[in-house]
Amino acid sequence: MSSLAQEEQFHVLAETLKLSERSLEIRWSDGKNANFHYLWLRDNCPSGFHPSTQERLFNLTTVSPDIYAFEGTFDTTTLYITWSEGAHKSAYPLQWLYENAYSPDFKKTLTSVIEPWGTEILNSLYEVDYSDLMQDDLVLFNWLKEVKKSGISYVRNVPCTDEGVTDVANRISFLRQTNFGTVFDVQSKPNPINNAYTSEALPLHIDLINQETPPGYQFLHCLVNDSQGGESTYADGFKIIEELRETDPDAFHLLTTITVPMRFHDFETDIRTRKTIINVDENGNLVELRYSPHLVDTFDMDESIMDSFYLAYRKLMDLINDSRFVISIKMKPGDLCIFDNRRVMHGRNAYEAGPGYSGARHLRGCYVDRSDFDSRLRVLERKYG
Amino acid sequence: MSSLAQEEQFHVLAETLKLSERSLEIRWSDGKNANFHYLWLRDNCPSGFHPSTQERLFNLTTVSPDIYAFEGTFDTTTLYITWSEGAHKSAYPLQWLYENAYSPDFKKTLTSVIEPWGTEILNSLYEVDYSDLMQDDLVLFNWLKEVKKSGISYVRNVPCTDEGVTDVANRISFLRQTNFGTVFDVQSKPNPINNAYTSEALPLHIDLINQETPPGYQFLHCLVNDSQGGESTYADGFKIIEELRETDPDAFHLLTTITVPMRFHDFETDIRTRKTIINVDENGNLVELRYSPHLVDTFDMDESIMDSFYLAYRKLMDLINDSRFVISIKMKPGDLCIFDNRRVMHGRNAYEAGPGYSGARHLRGCYVDRSDFDSRLRVLERKYG
Repeated sequence: MSSLAQEEQFHVLAETLKLSERSLEIRWSDGKNANFHYLWLRDNCPSGFHPSTQERLFNLTTVSPDIYAFEGTFDTTTLYITWSEGAHKSAYPLQWLYENAYSPDFKKTLTSVIEPWGTEILNSLYEVDYSDLMQDDLVLFNWLKEVKKSGISYVRNVPCTDEGVTDVANRISFLRQTNFGTVFDVQSKPNPINNAYTSEALPLHIDLINQETPPGYQFLHCLVNDSQGGESTYADGFKIIEELRETDPDAFHLLTTITVPMRFHDFETDIRTRKTIINVDENGNLVELRYSPHLVDTFDMDESIMDSFYLAYRKLMDLINDSRFVISIKMKPGDLCIFDNRRVMHGRNAYEAGPGYSGARHLRGCYVDRSDFDSRLRVLERKYG
Repeated sequence: MSSLAQEEQFHVLAETLKLSERSLEIRWSDGKNANFHYLWLRDNCPSGFHPSTQERLFNLTTVSPDIYAFEGTFDTTTLYITWSEGAHKSAYPLQWLYENAYSPDFKKTLTSVIEPWGTEILNSLYEVDYSDLMQDDLVLFNWLKEVKKSGISYVRNVPCTDEGVTDVANRISFLRQTNFGTVFDVQSKPNPINNAYTSEALPLHIDLINQETPPGYQFLHCLVNDSQGGESTYADGFKIIEELRETDPDAFHLLTTITVPMRFHDFETDIRTRKTIINVDENGNLVELRYSPHLVDTFDMDESIMDSFYLAYRKLMDLINDSRFVISIKMKPGDLCIFDNRRVMHGRNAYEAGPGYSGARHLRGCYVDRSDFDSRLRVLERKYG
């Protein structure tokens, strides 16, 4: 019931109240109608919440499924109900009822904050300075809002220490640990356990699609980039998916409904999941892209679907390779890129030594999950929103 | 392609090979038929995987969607293909093809390892001794298998130190961090931020349903339980859901398809998600229960669904309160309970001081996620399976 904490003026009045068998109806002074079911009302009686934790203590099974309002009245601020059982009375702030009404007149139009992008983002890539970000909560708040919108941003002048990347990430929340640790170093290694730890080109991909929930926001901090090549590449998966959805709805449908096995394994781990390559929520909003050719295991859908699935998958790949969507940035020491790993794909060009270049390249990375990123943004919104 | 690593004898031979426009068909010596589509075959050509990381390097967009087998032959162990483009040849071990065939003759019958339980589990609750568990990988392996089956087990004689619970959890994997930290202490606290930190009864629930992915396995280690009451309670959510699915399929359907808002918030966090209360995979297998009356936010589904949803939800609650499903165990210092937090609900009876009891109760807890638990089990299976 926290929305009551807001100090906004609320001017709508209740005009009429009608009690029916399983719900009551309020007609408001702005002409809207709202139905409230008795089970919903009883379950949300303000007396049923813990005063300190604000968590619900009320046990719905202590009332019958047929509980009803024996009596109902209202004044300018409050709806009062006397219940048919338990000798219980409830009082609901009208503002709270209005804000939580779920009838057709109150249908919420969800406006997405996501702004998909193509290469034009290079003209307006959001940047912040490390010192500003670390010292000023308002800078942090605005930065988080921008990162939420575009899914990508750069921080400049991050100290080239081991702690640079975690200092920035911890400004938001704690780190998401994975089988690669809480912090990982991306540089050529002998006997690499994954392709990132070589000097080869790394095609665009999402990290760790083999996890039940892939890591949310990724932080990559450049400590050394003294090589020919080695540019970082990015593409907005959501932009690409929207084009696929529009131009080939059948392919989009297959990729959002048919699950495939995903897997990473080495000597110490064998982490698997089974998911669709594109995930949408029940309203069709994009939730995540799980694209990583390295980590999809052998496809095993029904024979009758296999060929059309592969054609759909290959069409998505074609779009991902399309230069209209890919940006390329050579990081220099002190640069840090944050991106939504479940939306924005990343990769790199191959790198090597050359005239004036030692061939060394070293990025240090970590993750913060979406839940914790969003939480931080909401809490800052209480103050700055 | 790791299944080849297994040393099992493979006796089936290929008998005939027929090349068609988009796939080829193998008839095996055991009478089965398998179709393999050309895109699937090309994408799984053994030459396309990194020799060290075993990850796929091949880029499917380097071949056309209409690639086909120009020529195909086989011997007793291998299928050889010459492709219509790229002057490429592939060689596939027949055993690998047989094991990864996806035609109707090869339909896998998935056998679940899950064994739902009611109160009868008290007669056979799986227990291990701390020292055995810490020293013997085979004990660990058998324990993990049992925990996977029943979703619950006790470890006895865990040293009553701060590290007891993390020592056991780290035997499996690293810890899942949440806004409550990596390790949490369950005892009465002043100004509690959630109901667990009081001495009140705690009804059966799943922890942190407000997270996009709630923590997987929970570890609760009893350090002190010098109180009247304070028994731990558990119930197998999957057992309860199966009864609901059988007795009220409409309620089951609503609870698996209509999402509700879930939320935890305090001074520092505001973590929200939106999920169904019961999650099933595309084959109808149970994935998780998200039941916590404390943490469901105000329901906001369509007016036309609200009443029937509430009735379905209340029916689930009735089953959860049914004594046929609930077990009650008073933990003593040194006991540690592990349970699958996304399947097995936990709670406790209220506790207080009394004759001979100080009223003190202290559990220490942490989590390991399902992905990492399963990974550990798979890796041990390589040796002991």
